[in-house]
Amino acid sequence: MMHSAAPYKRRAYYYETDKMGIVHHSNYIRWFEEARLDSMGQTGLNYGSMEKTGIIMPVTNVSCRYIVSVRFDEEVEIFTKLSYFDGIRAAYSYEIYKDGGILAACGESGHCFLDEITRMPVSLKKKYPDFYEEGLSLVEGRTI
Amino acid sequence: MMHSAAPYKRRAYYYETDKMGIVHHSNYIRWFEEARLDSMGQTGLNYGSMEKTGIIMPVTNVSCRYIVSVRFDEEVEIFTKLSYFDGIRAAYSYEIYKDGGILAACGESGHCFLDEITRMPVSLKKKYPDFYEEGLSLVEGRTI
Amino acid sequence: MMHSAAPYKRRAYYYETDKMGIVHHSNYIRWFEEARLDSMGQTGLNYGSMEKTGIIMPVTNVSCRYIVSVRFDEEVEIFTKLSYFDGIRAAYSYEIYKDGGILAACGESGHCFLDEITRMPVSLKKKYPDFYEEGLSLVEGRTI
Amino acid sequence: MMHSAAPYKRRAYYYETDKMGIVHHSNYIRWFEEARLDSMGQTGLNYGSMEKTGIIMPVTNVSCRYIVSVRFDEEVEIFTKLSYFDGIRAAYSYEIYKDGGILAACGESGHCFLDEITRMPVSLKKKYPDFYEEGLSLVEGRTI
Repeated sequence: MMHSAAPYKRRAYYYETDKMGIVHHSNYIRWFEEARLDSMGQTGLNYGSMEKTGIIMPVTNVSCRYIVSVRFDEEVEIFTKLSYFDGIRAAYSYEIYKDGGILAACGESGHCFLDEITRMPVSLKKKYPDFYEEGLSLVEGRTI
Repeated sequence: MMHSAAPYKRRAYYYETDKMGIVHHSNYIRWFEEARLDSMGQTGLNYGSMEKTGIIMPVTNVSCRYIVSVRFDEEVEIFTKLSYFDGIRAAYSYEIYKDGGILAACGESGHCFLDEITRMPVSLKKKYPDFYEEGLSLVEGRTI
Repeated sequence: MMHSAAPYKRRAYYYETDKMGIVHHSNYIRWFEEARLDSMGQTGLNYGSMEKTGIIMPVTNVSCRYIVSVRFDEEVEIFTKLSYFDGIRAAYSYEIYKDGGILAACGESGHCFLDEITRMPVSLKKKYPDFYEEGLSLVEGRTI
Repeated sequence: MMHSAAPYKRRAYYYETDKMGIVHHSNYIRWFEEARLDSMGQTGLNYGSMEKTGIIMPVTNVSCRYIVSVRFDEEVEIFTKLSYFDGIRAAYSYEIYKDGGILAACGESGHCFLDEITRMPVSLKKKYPDFYEEGLSLVEGRTI
């Protein structure tokens, strides 16, 4: 996996655990979001700025595979990669590591771009060209 | 405690527990909100409707005292009472019972009424007279 | 889809929304859990009871596809189906409907059965035969 | 307020916002926990280590006053102070600042120390003398 940004680091919070004594699986979906927004910020295109231009990027699908449990106070490193981008839709993939190299979980999320008011799809190429160019330059496998 | 509405019932969800094996204390604050909005709905004044008129009711303070732990799948009954209301501010008090009568927790929340756009205080007496009258009729200890 | 239990109903809570004004996507994963545990309870095999016998059922993978947003206070009906079961692993599929028939989201979750103490896989056939038989009778496509 | 440890810093996550566009009030209670555990760790007494000795520190009460809203991606600094400690009970107070000095919220939490198995109160003086001494040295207003 080629990593397009510095990994996102954080610890597992106590309130994220459940009675099994491990981080509840739903929280990994939230960690993906944290890592994605951190990754976007590192490319100079802050998601908050994007929303201020009236464009939102809701999640259209998400998946996660849980491999090794994460426990309270353990530090994780999350690698995020823009795996698909065409200005209409985008997809990110994630790998969560703990203990300096153990793959704890991996997953993906799909997104579209909508006008915040109308909730209709927007083309970033027209509406947010800076992000469009940035997206093209980041996406894996871009050949042109 | 005089209860102004039917209690709000729900079970403790698995994801609400933490590694102590009990419901995490932060969730009681969320349960208070569930119970408050349910209680408002019972009086015929739905909070969703209120927001649609452009008025929001943020929380200005909250407190909770934890007495007996609640565990996964236990059913709780939450009694909500409007304890203060003057059309500018409101306060609710809560009692959470389990096992048909054991007081598990109690608490309070304070609220103001704001214009959703300007985020400035509004007087319900002028802006939402129906709710104002309803509030006056519900608040405990109203003497006229 | 053949539904093996009565659907699980609940409303979207205020705290489940995010600044897009819709239920945050991570909460659907929690709703799946609520629905799954409710569904298990309906079959007479309560997950709480299962954990008391020392068996836990962690999530090995989860996925969700988001079709129509759910908003605050909207009621959803969640249909849960045991789609795979062999006593070692299980999978559930979910459909979330709103407004009496609009498919809002669908997804799946995979599970294994572990000894709570050792965290090693257990065979329900040996350790929890009642659940094993129940599982076999519930799983779709069982031909024997 | 005398601050006994470096402040705890973090950003507001997207999923912590609600449809008002601000961080949901329940999350501040979670932030208090994050800050408290971070603060404990800084004193050399990690809460995880404490739990490993069989002692848990549940919350007996919590309160929060909300002054200025925190929005998505804003950074907050949380100052935590051990305001009471006698080896049987403890209390912490919190101040949350944003924008480098605006008080966004403040609050308190109360705690007891319990044996993880019996859930009966324990005296840290006997069971966890290192933490007891550390607590005494940290608590504000200690006169002896």
